Amino acid sequence: AILAAISAALGAGRLAGRHVLVTSGPTHEPIDPVRYIANRSSGAQGTAIAAALRDLGARVTFVTGPASVPPPPGVDVVAVGTAAQMAAAVRAALPADAAVMAAAVADWRIANPGTQKMKKDGSDRPPALDFAENEDILAAVSRGEPRPRLVVGFAAETEKVVEHATAKRLRKGCDWILANDVSPETGIMGGAENAVTLIDANGAEPWPRMGKDAVARRLAERIANALA
Amino acid sequence: AILAAISAALGAGRLAGRHVLVTSGPTHEPIDPVRYIANRSSGAQGTAIAAALRDLGARVTFVTGPASVPPPPGVDVVAVGTAAQMAAAVRAALPADAAVMAAAVADWRIANPGTQKMKKDGSDRPPALDFAENEDILAAVSRGEPRPRLVVGFAAETEKVVEHATAKRLRKGCDWILANDVSPETGIMGGAENAVTLIDANGAEPWPRMGKDAVARRLAERIANALA
Repeated sequence: AILAAISAALGAGRLAGRHVLVTSGPTHEPIDPVRYIANRSSGAQGTAIAAALRDLGARVTFVTGPASVPPPPGVDVVAVGTAAQMAAAVRAALPADAAVMAAAVADWRIANPGTQKMKKDGSDRPPALDFAENEDILAAVSRGEPRPRLVVGFAAETEKVVEHATAKRLRKGCDWILANDVSPETGIMGGAENAVTLIDANGAEPWPRMGKDAVARRLAERIANALA
Repeated sequence: AILAAISAALGAGRLAGRHVLVTSGPTHEPIDPVRYIANRSSGAQGTAIAAALRDLGARVTFVTGPASVPPPPGVDVVAVGTAAQMAAAVRAALPADAAVMAAAVADWRIANPGTQKMKKDGSDRPPALDFAENEDILAAVSRGEPRPRLVVGFAAETEKVVEHATAKRLRKGCDWILANDVSPETGIMGGAENAVTLIDANGAEPWPRMGKDAVARRLAERIANALA
């Protein structure tokens, strides 16, 4: 890592001169001033990927939701809370040579968040929450302009992982999907290891279970190959 | 603090021989295996109260949700996730001489949490979430058996703080309410300071804004007076 950092500082890495956008972490969608909808993403995999791309010499813009791990040094950090804020930060970060969309973005937000704390009113009825679908950031980057040459999405699944992720790749228009099984019994979400399958136009390539840092280094090398 | 800890270890504190139950932190209510509803409680105030009670010699049972600050040393920690788990842990911790219910317990849970990750189905309709009201832990302790001699509730409000908290004290049947204003502009929720009003049968006593540790020590002394 030290050698890689020196190499990157000297502009000698395989990704020297490249700009890579990485999104990471969960988003928080407010219900009212004190409550929100969250997800169990720690940001660990996205953080490791940003660090690995940096180590190969890339200039990295790191758009991160409220993660439980700190962002890596040596990248341009843009901290956001909601999916809408992440979408805006991603737009502002383009153009990029590649985009790695590792964030666990909420599909929905609360359309009518309370400006005051919602109270139980004695009726035993919960407050009515109206949901609105958030912008699909991965699809927007994959189908928008300027499109990065390489767009990598993630699929966090709990069943039929390859089938769901293969369909997702086509639906979103991204180049690669890194799919993983986030069922609680795998210990992957919030854990130190990951077991991913890389899905591209040629099919599905399962990677062995390994540390999230090792997944990140392998992905960064693949990205360097694709941009070479 | 060191003198207090030595004093407590010698059984010499004002609360020596007393058992105090403290709840703290947020609860997380699952939507599906990866999503949940959370709140912005850090657990800082409840943690400080548990430490202050310990320093006065109490045996403290500390029932904590997923807080962002670590539990204090020297207390019996019971870690829970959901409001239902917290309710069960509180029941198991009784009897107690006093109970300080500082946790920010979710009023509602999802009645039908998904066993698999909920998917967007292309209909642009969000998944239907059915809410169920959680057990009211403060009311259950205040009106249940064995009732602690002193039950202290908290009221996190964003408007009409004293009015809402005074009504809450009567509705729940607790002895005291520590009320505070958690509007985002106060910086209290997740911050280091607190500005509380102590509400009891005699009325409302506003305390000056001070560190959460100072609030905790003042409350612990009041509790020791009440149990003396």
